[in-house]
Amino acid sequence: MGSNKHVAGSEEFTVDMSSERFTAEKQSKDKSGPVNELDYGYHPEMVDDFSRPRFFYDCCSSFLQCSVPPVMAFHLGSLGFLTPFKFESYKTEVAKVFEGNAAITLRSRLKVKVVKDMLQRTGQQSYSREQQQEQNGLLPHGHTNSETGKVTLQLQVLNEVVVDRGPSSYLSNVDLYLDGRLITSVQGDGVIVSTPTGSTAYAAAAGASMIHPNVPAIMVTPICPHSLSFRPIVVPAGVELMITLSPDARNTAWVSFDGRKRQEIQHGDCIKITTSCYPVPSICCHDLVYDWFESLAQCLHWNVRKRQNRLADISDSSDTEN
Amino acid sequence: MGSNKHVAGSEEFTVDMSSERFTAEKQSKDKSGPVNELDYGYHPEMVDDFSRPRFFYDCCSSFLQCSVPPVMAFHLGSLGFLTPFKFESYKTEVAKVFEGNAAITLRSRLKVKVVKDMLQRTGQQSYSREQQQEQNGLLPHGHTNSETGKVTLQLQVLNEVVVDRGPSSYLSNVDLYLDGRLITSVQGDGVIVSTPTGSTAYAAAAGASMIHPNVPAIMVTPICPHSLSFRPIVVPAGVELMITLSPDARNTAWVSFDGRKRQEIQHGDCIKITTSCYPVPSICCHDLVYDWFESLAQCLHWNVRKRQNRLADISDSSDTEN
Amino acid sequence: MGSNKHVAGSEEFTVDMSSERFTAEKQSKDKSGPVNELDYGYHPEMVDDFSRPRFFYDCCSSFLQCSVPPVMAFHLGSLGFLTPFKFESYKTEVAKVFEGNAAITLRSRLKVKVVKDMLQRTGQQSYSREQQQEQNGLLPHGHTNSETGKVTLQLQVLNEVVVDRGPSSYLSNVDLYLDGRLITSVQGDGVIVSTPTGSTAYAAAAGASMIHPNVPAIMVTPICPHSLSFRPIVVPAGVELMITLSPDARNTAWVSFDGRKRQEIQHGDCIKITTSCYPVPSICCHDLVYDWFESLAQCLHWNVRKRQNRLADISDSSDTEN
Amino acid sequence: MGSNKHVAGSEEFTVDMSSERFTAEKQSKDKSGPVNELDYGYHPEMVDDFSRPRFFYDCCSSFLQCSVPPVMAFHLGSLGFLTPFKFESYKTEVAKVFEGNAAITLRSRLKVKVVKDMLQRTGQQSYSREQQQEQNGLLPHGHTNSETGKVTLQLQVLNEVVVDRGPSSYLSNVDLYLDGRLITSVQGDGVIVSTPTGSTAYAAAAGASMIHPNVPAIMVTPICPHSLSFRPIVVPAGVELMITLSPDARNTAWVSFDGRKRQEIQHGDCIKITTSCYPVPSICCHDLVYDWFESLAQCLHWNVRKRQNRLADISDSSDTEN
Repeated sequence: MGSNKHVAGSEEFTVDMSSERFTAEKQSKDKSGPVNELDYGYHPEMVDDFSRPRFFYDCCSSFLQCSVPPVMAFHLGSLGFLTPFKFESYKTEVAKVFEGNAAITLRSRLKVKVVKDMLQRTGQQSYSREQQQEQNGLLPHGHTNSETGKVTLQLQVLNEVVVDRGPSSYLSNVDLYLDGRLITSVQGDGVIVSTPTGSTAYAAAAGASMIHPNVPAIMVTPICPHSLSFRPIVVPAGVELMITLSPDARNTAWVSFDGRKRQEIQHGDCIKITTSCYPVPSICCHDLVYDWFESLAQCLHWNVRKRQNRLADISDSSDTEN
Repeated sequence: MGSNKHVAGSEEFTVDMSSERFTAEKQSKDKSGPVNELDYGYHPEMVDDFSRPRFFYDCCSSFLQCSVPPVMAFHLGSLGFLTPFKFESYKTEVAKVFEGNAAITLRSRLKVKVVKDMLQRTGQQSYSREQQQEQNGLLPHGHTNSETGKVTLQLQVLNEVVVDRGPSSYLSNVDLYLDGRLITSVQGDGVIVSTPTGSTAYAAAAGASMIHPNVPAIMVTPICPHSLSFRPIVVPAGVELMITLSPDARNTAWVSFDGRKRQEIQHGDCIKITTSCYPVPSICCHDLVYDWFESLAQCLHWNVRKRQNRLADISDSSDTEN
Repeated sequence: MGSNKHVAGSEEFTVDMSSERFTAEKQSKDKSGPVNELDYGYHPEMVDDFSRPRFFYDCCSSFLQCSVPPVMAFHLGSLGFLTPFKFESYKTEVAKVFEGNAAITLRSRLKVKVVKDMLQRTGQQSYSREQQQEQNGLLPHGHTNSETGKVTLQLQVLNEVVVDRGPSSYLSNVDLYLDGRLITSVQGDGVIVSTPTGSTAYAAAAGASMIHPNVPAIMVTPICPHSLSFRPIVVPAGVELMITLSPDARNTAWVSFDGRKRQEIQHGDCIKITTSCYPVPSICCHDLVYDWFESLAQCLHWNVRKRQNRLADISDSSDTEN
Repeated sequence: MGSNKHVAGSEEFTVDMSSERFTAEKQSKDKSGPVNELDYGYHPEMVDDFSRPRFFYDCCSSFLQCSVPPVMAFHLGSLGFLTPFKFESYKTEVAKVFEGNAAITLRSRLKVKVVKDMLQRTGQQSYSREQQQEQNGLLPHGHTNSETGKVTLQLQVLNEVVVDRGPSSYLSNVDLYLDGRLITSVQGDGVIVSTPTGSTAYAAAAGASMIHPNVPAIMVTPICPHSLSFRPIVVPAGVELMITLSPDARNTAWVSFDGRKRQEIQHGDCIKITTSCYPVPSICCHDLVYDWFESLAQCLHWNVRKRQNRLADISDSSDTEN
């Protein structure tokens, strides 16, 4: 590949450790602000992505739609959940990993399919294979569906699938199926189906508990649900979830995948979600436990403690301490 | 009063500004750690309290059970919601206030009565007036009740009245009345009735929204309620709340007032709570708005922001920024 | 007015009680489903609205942008927070009210102004007065602003002003000012500024406590905030809130008013919100307390209780009950 | 074995399916209220427990501290999470199971050890083996600890271990270790370490997400934490958690196990918690999915939906539907 130069506005930089051809070089000349020039001698097919922010996601979500080699993710700026390594010391860090001092977290992903016209909807425009490719740069893995319908999109997501009301002011109304059985309807701003990795992202903002990436689970979190009692739930990895518009929904919904490929979902369409066979092996900086709690503290200020005691804490002290 | 010396282990120090006899002097000789010696020429009846932590509460809750002069609350250590002034610069601060540069927040308090045997309970031990005084150092304001029952305790609280399960492992079951009408039953660890001032204390820990002290309101917050839909509520100042054990409660409950005077509540007893006629005029350091939001940030890390963007934030950037 | 016939698909029906000319007649002939025909002899300017759902909001939000007469709101279907009266018995209900047996809740509203180009933004398209009228059917109350900028919209809202990320997948970044002082920045899906009436609507879905309509307050609730510690806050009625895009916001935001008039907010624009001088006097069915708690229970299933005890509740019973 | 008669005040009834000797007979003569007489020909060592409520817990928590045969749990009254079967039709239900039509959920349990004096505390009273037995009816599985200290209690819990402030008004301050590393300190009412089974009990009341019993995980949930950002976390089954008093804690804490065996924890003591090797095989009524969601709906009113639309839902309808 020679020495392609790329300007990355991103704060993330990911190295695929499966090859010894790794020759990343940081050449920080004439950059302004957080921009970095990289000389990157590997994976020419990734080159385009390098000029973009959010490289890790581009790697994990779009490009690597199947098996993923171990990745070693560097943060160029502030620490992220997925980027425990400092870029400044990348040579040392990489060396240590090659020496074999590295733990791996297998970050599970979700395999998502969007099926159009599955449920006998009429008057539906269909997309040609060509259109799809142009639209999202992805080859649909399958073109037909066992039931009926057309699989118009299939991809792997690392964080979450979000179904929401899109630009509409109306509440979305979607039905959630688990292993073929309707388990509940979601009335509200939408619903998030996330991996444990995604539990610290949008799902956390929507009120979910945070799940360590080693827990084999899928999290379902409503977004501003109309029902006060709609608490997030955690189901076992491997179940098949399906989301459709509720029959009585007066509006369409919108779906996005790791924040991307945003598209409309209409009556008759469905989104099928299950655990992917292709997790992302992510190299730990310290270990599974340390990295995660360090990220919780650094990225989310989880349980940041106030030195001072709550006032109630020192109550009655006149009675007991005198 | 001469020059009584007191050793305060507290991090709060409150000055009653209603008298020009104020002569507080900080004489910081031979102290160890956060201990301060104070020469205090006012309010001899407060003297005893000075050797105790949590002086502000002692003043506002116990001692000053009626009208309260404007108070100027200093923190000797870290900032608190009620103590916006730094003690180090108390002379300047006090001088400024005397020059008239001070805004006042009227912090509402709750007037609370515990009525025993109100609801035809039998086999109830009664407390003599003497016992009560010994128990809690308070003169009961009334001795009889318009209905029946005996008012065994009446006091003003600044933060909250907490009814909980006490040492029991059992859920508490209490009924909540508003202006004489049963509005709901609380099944869980208990319930907090708080002022806006108290909304940033225990009620916040239990999940309540935070209310500026100038909002004339009373907040009712369940503690770990059994019902998923039991959201905290805010009712207008001036309503009368009443709490009793539910008729089917298998256990007693415990009540405390600003974390103190903890006592058991049995079948037939009731706790009556309303807004006190005697708010605490608290002198602002800057102004009502600044002081409160400063405290939210400092004491509760409210909306501490992470510099880094959420990953989802920079999604789709490949589409838009290229 | 004669006998205009209107077909209302709505489940709400509101009667303005300030005039004895009230002659509402329900003539339920040839309707299908929940559709009702009404003979309505008052307020001809409301006539158009009658053929629309959400009449109460149309009345309170759009039409009656100033002083509002007492309203008596009927639900044609299921009970709502704003519609305590059953339509079936409207004659009796109205008669009772005319006899003087009615309590009034003054439901506060928010006065909202959208100011364009207030903060020296350039390259901004300006709207002519004519365009505005066509766009939103409202006469802007003022055309110029004391600072600079153009008031492009001014209206009264009964529930809430919502600023969100609109169709974008990006987090919104807005700054919140209170009485001219920046108090915090909101990073997340958006922010809701609501009345107590609105506290049981979208704000409740976003996690806020619920505020009785008689509490003079404004509630600020973040929508899926990035920060775990961003709890909703309640500030006194009468403060002036202002919302702008954060200087570093990479995207625009969208604002809507009681779910309507959705429009984009760009750098330099601002939204000013304060308590309106024109609350909506709403006639209670029973009284302030009963109506509200009845609605909480009926509409939100607030603290719906399970008969069965929590299992932990009966623990240790072998020890104590034997 | 004969025909022991037992009077159960409980609403649960559990059948051990591992033996064909099962001969339970319900002989509902001369009982009052929910009391049932049972003729039960199995497991004479359980007999004592039969006269007590909360039998399932007694079985799973106390008695069966090692391997547990498949259990089939009947509710005698209202449905519970652990008791999907109706007692009325127990003969049919049992027959079906014997025919082989049954799915099993392995409900994980926590193995908990209380170690006294582990951390060089002095002046500590030690318990003799006899005292322990009297105190809690349990044989300690081990008597010494690999480090130092004395294991004073070891048991299996099905729901949760709760560490709280006990009868004190003071906040508890405990440190939480994961695999030997301090991960955070808990300042608040306490902390809950629960199984997925327990996630729908006390942990749900404290705000946790709800975890399907098939997810191999341990949930850590703070109770009314002082820190606004202390969200519950879910860690993988198999990690070892340890809880101690924080060195600066001014008070002791109290621990209980499935709501029982409540005891004080002092400086130097520690509680060790890990996933038990002995899950409870629990026979499903329908299947894993159905039973759990049915229980969520029935027991917790999870996402109970209001028929009526939120008002905001039908906003703008005048614009779109006319």
